[in-house]
Amino acid sequence: MPEFLSLVSPEAALSLLFSHLHLDLRDEDTKTEQALGKVTAEDILSPQDLPEFRRSTVDGYSLIARDSHGASESLPAYLKLAGEVLMGNAPEFDLSSKECALIHTGGMLPESANAVVMLEDTQVLDAGEIEIFRSVASGENVIEIGEDVPEGGIVISKGTRLRPAEIGGLLALGITKIRTISSPKIGIISSGDEVIPPDQNPKPGEVRDINSYTLGALINELGAEVIHYGIIPDDRDDLREILRIGLQECDHIIVTAGSSASSRDLTADVMNELGDPGVLVHGVSIKPGKPTIFALAGEKVMIGLPGNPVSALVIAYILVKPIIQVYLGLKNRMTPASIPAKLIMNVPSQAGREDWIPVRLIEGEKGVFQAEPIFGRSNLIFLLAKADGLVKIPSSTTGLEAGVEVSVRLF
Amino acid sequence: MPEFLSLVSPEAALSLLFSHLHLDLRDEDTKTEQALGKVTAEDILSPQDLPEFRRSTVDGYSLIARDSHGASESLPAYLKLAGEVLMGNAPEFDLSSKECALIHTGGMLPESANAVVMLEDTQVLDAGEIEIFRSVASGENVIEIGEDVPEGGIVISKGTRLRPAEIGGLLALGITKIRTISSPKIGIISSGDEVIPPDQNPKPGEVRDINSYTLGALINELGAEVIHYGIIPDDRDDLREILRIGLQECDHIIVTAGSSASSRDLTADVMNELGDPGVLVHGVSIKPGKPTIFALAGEKVMIGLPGNPVSALVIAYILVKPIIQVYLGLKNRMTPASIPAKLIMNVPSQAGREDWIPVRLIEGEKGVFQAEPIFGRSNLIFLLAKADGLVKIPSSTTGLEAGVEVSVRLF
Repeated sequence: MPEFLSLVSPEAALSLLFSHLHLDLRDEDTKTEQALGKVTAEDILSPQDLPEFRRSTVDGYSLIARDSHGASESLPAYLKLAGEVLMGNAPEFDLSSKECALIHTGGMLPESANAVVMLEDTQVLDAGEIEIFRSVASGENVIEIGEDVPEGGIVISKGTRLRPAEIGGLLALGITKIRTISSPKIGIISSGDEVIPPDQNPKPGEVRDINSYTLGALINELGAEVIHYGIIPDDRDDLREILRIGLQECDHIIVTAGSSASSRDLTADVMNELGDPGVLVHGVSIKPGKPTIFALAGEKVMIGLPGNPVSALVIAYILVKPIIQVYLGLKNRMTPASIPAKLIMNVPSQAGREDWIPVRLIEGEKGVFQAEPIFGRSNLIFLLAKADGLVKIPSSTTGLEAGVEVSVRLF
Repeated sequence: MPEFLSLVSPEAALSLLFSHLHLDLRDEDTKTEQALGKVTAEDILSPQDLPEFRRSTVDGYSLIARDSHGASESLPAYLKLAGEVLMGNAPEFDLSSKECALIHTGGMLPESANAVVMLEDTQVLDAGEIEIFRSVASGENVIEIGEDVPEGGIVISKGTRLRPAEIGGLLALGITKIRTISSPKIGIISSGDEVIPPDQNPKPGEVRDINSYTLGALINELGAEVIHYGIIPDDRDDLREILRIGLQECDHIIVTAGSSASSRDLTADVMNELGDPGVLVHGVSIKPGKPTIFALAGEKVMIGLPGNPVSALVIAYILVKPIIQVYLGLKNRMTPASIPAKLIMNVPSQAGREDWIPVRLIEGEKGVFQAEPIFGRSNLIFLLAKADGLVKIPSSTTGLEAGVEVSVRLF
């Protein structure tokens, strides 16, 4: 009954899994305005120049730059007002030499105009004459055709998660539909003879299921779809049957074992029976989460997590999230999920094992954060509910001292 | 036509608005498993002790602590095996003095047991006798009743946004339904004679609407509901009518003005007509976004944003987001949205005005980030699409020098 696991480091565990995993991701059409948080399945090229016409960046007078040359407060240039460019229209006139036209921010320059002088550098005289107090260079206060994006240029590359700015940029180009990576389907199985659904009252010795919901919420947050397979007892046949169904319906399955060692061993055995190459990792040199299992049936990843809800959720953040990001097709702009902070207490650890401890962040001076470790007799999910993130104690050390700078992995 | 705005600082603008705003937030029942990202409308108390029975935190033998006292490798204690505690069940037996029982992680202790010795510190002898090589203290490797949460204790306070750990903690207590703040309804009106919908082809002088979608996406990301009122021309009666409808249907309305100064002035005039106290702020000492308007009709906030899509989105991140967070009921755990980074170029600025510049983050050594300013002739939405966040140049300086540490506000 004791476990004799052959432990590998967290990095080695992920590398081993990724070296066996060659996904062919599905993609689909998505309306751009509903694509927030989705990931692009291909490079997106601009179908046009943006802008498509020369626009003023200020309120002022469009003119031919050389007509302003030499102008100053003491020696203004005098130009004839040829008209006003109305917003949303091409100007119905052009400028001749020594002429100018009133223009608003975003307005379209008359064909011969090549610069705009700002209103505050001008004064209206009678008889349609404008006094110009400042010399402007050719191109000044003008956005040229294609200056934002040239036709055919890559505007968003494959594997980018779309944020509000990208959505706006695509719609500015009239791109109202794009190809995005389809949400992977991730199955969750909660096992353990002692586990019951949250809406039931536990008898002595029973506990309510937590893992299905913490993991489900995290997976939803990442943008993947969750399929719940409920709670099954610690029974080999039941587990094999539900995993077989899950492998057909999902891209990726997570099993949280019952908290006993025998329940964890059962999970690894059954995963080995379901396809090749089977179990790749059983045991990771990390705390919490040592009995973590990575297995592969063809191109479908199966993960066995400890039954302890804190361990399961910490491992989900540290080791499962990077796997889901591969399924999501993420290649670019992994938002930095960590912030530096100053540790305010000593934290002992054990060499040869990576420790992850929950910390609360306290805002200090100049936006520098302090990280306060949250200790507790583990196992307690409300320990994580009090925390803002996790701090790694590397396997090479026997602890971290108060005052050192640490990198806090945010939830 | 030139603007003569009376500028206030960004902080003063928000303070003035909040001093007039006394919201009575709506709340509603939500199923806990669907409450990810929602905000609690009341303190949540635990209906029970958690755990409800004394649990082992390890695999081992439960025993009466004093029976192990003095035990060591060289002088083991010998205890009689009284049985095995099955997972999910109360033990069907109790321990007498000098007895122990096999127990799994999470198992329920027999009534007289008060500690657990780990398997690795024991050995099974014949005839149901167990050799104990280590002395354990009373309570060792045991979670006591109510140690995670006592009955009646506050587990999550009002105004907390729920993450996966909180969802799991609530379900562990059998709390399957909670009161959460109802999503505020936020209306978006895009105005400007030059603006057309993204699925149309612009004629010369016209541009596609970007603001409805960038702002809509940001509002969705924050957890609020968006009502789109489409595009209206720069017309006083049209704007007044659509704002009147919006005020009836929404909690909060955002108008992005056309990009001309006259369009912006029109927005402020109309907002003043729609209720008291009317326009509170017209002009903020910030770049981009100087012509921002804050107005209030009763308890409904109206915000006027510049038409320039970059300005509108930057102001939405800096000034609109904190207002939406008030409508969301957020009080606790504002996730730190900034990370420190080293600026890698000089950035000039103008004293007396807060500047916000887009930067790209480059990961340097030891997880320390470098912030690279993204310069460009403004106005270009793809400028923001290239950026990871914004850096503030305070109004007290005339710029920041390469090498200084800055705080990057992440998107």
